[in-house]
Amino acid sequence: MRFDLATAVSPLPGSDSGSGPGSYSGAIHPSWDIRGNANGGYLVAMAARAMSDRLGRPDPATITAHFLSPGLVGPVEVSTEIVKEGRMFGTATATMRPVAPADAVDASGSAPAPRPIIQVLGAFTDLSDSGAPELVDAAPPVLPPVEECVELTDDAGFSPELFKQIELRMHPDDAYFHVKPSGQALMRGWFRLLDDEPMDTIALLLATDALPPTVFNADLPVSWVPTVELTVHLRSRPVPGWLRCEFRTRFVTGGFLEEDGLVWDESGRLVAQSRQLALLPKI
Amino acid sequence: MRFDLATAVSPLPGSDSGSGPGSYSGAIHPSWDIRGNANGGYLVAMAARAMSDRLGRPDPATITAHFLSPGLVGPVEVSTEIVKEGRMFGTATATMRPVAPADAVDASGSAPAPRPIIQVLGAFTDLSDSGAPELVDAAPPVLPPVEECVELTDDAGFSPELFKQIELRMHPDDAYFHVKPSGQALMRGWFRLLDDEPMDTIALLLATDALPPTVFNADLPVSWVPTVELTVHLRSRPVPGWLRCEFRTRFVTGGFLEEDGLVWDESGRLVAQSRQLALLPKI
Repeated sequence: MRFDLATAVSPLPGSDSGSGPGSYSGAIHPSWDIRGNANGGYLVAMAARAMSDRLGRPDPATITAHFLSPGLVGPVEVSTEIVKEGRMFGTATATMRPVAPADAVDASGSAPAPRPIIQVLGAFTDLSDSGAPELVDAAPPVLPPVEECVELTDDAGFSPELFKQIELRMHPDDAYFHVKPSGQALMRGWFRLLDDEPMDTIALLLATDALPPTVFNADLPVSWVPTVELTVHLRSRPVPGWLRCEFRTRFVTGGFLEEDGLVWDESGRLVAQSRQLALLPKI
Repeated sequence: MRFDLATAVSPLPGSDSGSGPGSYSGAIHPSWDIRGNANGGYLVAMAARAMSDRLGRPDPATITAHFLSPGLVGPVEVSTEIVKEGRMFGTATATMRPVAPADAVDASGSAPAPRPIIQVLGAFTDLSDSGAPELVDAAPPVLPPVEECVELTDDAGFSPELFKQIELRMHPDDAYFHVKPSGQALMRGWFRLLDDEPMDTIALLLATDALPPTVFNADLPVSWVPTVELTVHLRSRPVPGWLRCEFRTRFVTGGFLEEDGLVWDESGRLVAQSRQLALLPKI
């Protein structure tokens, strides 16, 4: 399924639906999940589409999401609130909730708001070239050509449905975590949408959360690391083609770990920088 | 002035003040500013005190603030909303606004809400030791002893009022940015509150935003870099004593830059990891 359709939202007429102004309907589509829970980047992208529409600005400059309950397949409502409309940025919040089944409506005709899936805060802008001075003290990860990288299939022991919706080719040094972890909390690979669907800055949000968890390559007894919070800075709209992605963890402490991501486009430009805080459950 | 008093808030009785439940009164105190605009970490700490009280949880695990308008000295109101109360985390939003002068109240007795200063989203928890496995792939910055480090005085050409409220001792290699930038977008130093006031996790928020901007040491024509957004992950409560702080920028692109911070306590433990997105204004 095309990513732009899978993350589409449409404004709800406030008076008809009982929703406030700035509410949008959308749906969590099948096959964007990992073990039944929709991918975090996918959910944030859907919320970002609503926020972008509400603010009338195309590009998230910085967006933060907190993950509160599993995103299950089905209709959702994204309610947005404008915090500030400035010259350079529009700032808004968004809450995504499942749409309550009709039988949850009580005698007064109102349903209790279902538990939120994600809560989002973001600043949107127009990421056209700024002409400001630049200084880059890092290079894109060196990856073998796409055709020499590794597609994660069911053999990998970690091949969520999500991987059938994207094109992901892992660095051979990082791809065999299911057999022999590399010993480094590092995941690198090529990413694009299925059939090379064009990517906007909102599609980059998916790329920042699509690779297997870095700690699968560390020598730690870990089976899953649920994300508490994800923040992404978008620096530029990507040129068409493959993205080069690199995710790294340096600090597993106090039951938490960060996962730091860098995403570069085919022109060699940094397009996104991400960090998530994840939980390391006790064994 | 003690930091805990300078960031204190008290709950407003909802019915008396016209404020909703979960609103707190506080004040931006003099001398916590940089050129008249209160320090970002100071503002976030004040909002965090309100959120922590509202949620009944002591420690922010991850907190994100967007900076919307200058924090000027005077009374403020912090309105909080609970997003979710879970087993492990309580999640809330907060909006800090200046308190409108009494003459702004219109005939109906209600005043238009003043422009927000900051908007915050955070997850709070109890950061007691988790017993989870740990893995740390970095060491605290190597700093000369405190007495060999450099106090930034008015001679530095950058000595905001804030620096009289904290004890900051800069690494000699990074301290002379006003005379000769080091050429590396890096700032390192020792930090503690005045008179060694004890620090909780909320006080660490100040430490993540208290050093001079990293780009002052880069070869860039920059006079100021306003923060758009700051996200801090708190990993542990600090032991008493000095903090070792390190801030670094790798990517100045598209008119933006990130500033990545690591804060370690005197026991050598990572206590906070921060990232902010700042604007690089056109010259």
